[in-house]
Amino acid sequence: MLTVAYDGSAYSGFQLQDNAPTIEGEVNRCLGELLQEEIKVIGGSRTDAGVHALCNIAVFDTESRIPGEKISYALNQRLPEDIRIRQSQEVAAGFHPRRCESRKTYEYHILNAKFPVPTKRLYSYFTYVPLNVGKMQEAAAYLVGEHDFKSFCSAGGQTESTVRTIHSLQVMQEGEEIVIRVTGNGFLYNMVRILAGTLMEAGKGAWEPERANEILLAKDRGAAGPTAPACGLILAKYEFFHMDGNRN
Amino acid sequence: MLTVAYDGSAYSGFQLQDNAPTIEGEVNRCLGELLQEEIKVIGGSRTDAGVHALCNIAVFDTESRIPGEKISYALNQRLPEDIRIRQSQEVAAGFHPRRCESRKTYEYHILNAKFPVPTKRLYSYFTYVPLNVGKMQEAAAYLVGEHDFKSFCSAGGQTESTVRTIHSLQVMQEGEEIVIRVTGNGFLYNMVRILAGTLMEAGKGAWEPERANEILLAKDRGAAGPTAPACGLILAKYEFFHMDGNRN
Repeated sequence: MLTVAYDGSAYSGFQLQDNAPTIEGEVNRCLGELLQEEIKVIGGSRTDAGVHALCNIAVFDTESRIPGEKISYALNQRLPEDIRIRQSQEVAAGFHPRRCESRKTYEYHILNAKFPVPTKRLYSYFTYVPLNVGKMQEAAAYLVGEHDFKSFCSAGGQTESTVRTIHSLQVMQEGEEIVIRVTGNGFLYNMVRILAGTLMEAGKGAWEPERANEILLAKDRGAAGPTAPACGLILAKYEFFHMDGNRN
Repeated sequence: MLTVAYDGSAYSGFQLQDNAPTIEGEVNRCLGELLQEEIKVIGGSRTDAGVHALCNIAVFDTESRIPGEKISYALNQRLPEDIRIRQSQEVAAGFHPRRCESRKTYEYHILNAKFPVPTKRLYSYFTYVPLNVGKMQEAAAYLVGEHDFKSFCSAGGQTESTVRTIHSLQVMQEGEEIVIRVTGNGFLYNMVRILAGTLMEAGKGAWEPERANEILLAKDRGAAGPTAPACGLILAKYEFFHMDGNRN
């Protein structure tokens, strides 16, 4: 199991594609060269084009006798600078990251200032429209817990159920940045970016915070705010429970 | 007077060069297009290749009737994404940023972790060697005040006197990052990067903190630590006193 950090700016997302650079493609290629086997990793979170990660997950089977914890070092020698393996470890043979009970934390970074800051442009969404953090927090409170998040799911998602649990959803002012930090047991397609886009509507004063509740009840993507741009999003934490290889 | 923020990654430094991209070159070109005059700005800090800034200074004369405070908006439409004007204002005709009493604050960012983090690679120096922040703080204490910083000056600097005043020099642990924050009335060529390189020697335990004092007294570049890489450095603050255009 690899813990993979990346700057998604130059990639068409995590998931393998035929004619576009992807994180999965780079990891497969470098693992193949290192282990002299054809490797196809199974990814944890299928982050979109331009989305970043501190700790996505990739697992694979290998015949290699290289100890699990050494693979990170060898692999980092081959990977491009914008992808780094932060940890590698042996896990149970049947372990599948998307079939195991887990908890992910995403952060959405907003630079809310009069002018953009060039050194932050790749890792935050810039808006000069003043956002009221208190209103964003009020709106966020409606979304915590187990809900049907159908309104917060873009077309193209493949899951049957759109019920998910948000364990916590914080909105924090950090200097000129506003950080939305959300932890949950799973996220629908574009869910965090739509949450961010919706909370920003409340922050701008365009919508009252209680509208967040109406959006949930509508179960209609059209009711929620826009999908916030990819560059502001980063997968910050990924925790597993019962990693014994059985579906929980 | 323009307050200029930039990501220095793609540039050969602030100062104009004939055959290399520079911040000054881009600002001159865009101002020339906007104002339909040949403009040559006078820069505040001549940051090196790869060094970043939140607030460098550039001043220029113009015949234009565009109000000073509007120029930032118009100029940002023309500048590349990695350069942004955060403020523009009219100042006294004779004002010269390098001849005016001023105080600059630089930050040097070190990512001190087991593995690099791709989203921080452009704006910090990575080292996996554990650094002791307490030892770095002890070493830093010797450098605060008015001193001859000849040992902290690379060859190629053009000043006669190498005496400068450091008003404050803090070393702070911020998560996995160590931030060196230094405020002074002026800095010699590569001074902050040599300070950072020297403090890191103390942090590694290679040198005792009190060696910082011996380095000052040696007045010899060879006595100090290495010049830390450019990408970790950012000009964070630039304050002027008595902006009446006279040399103070």
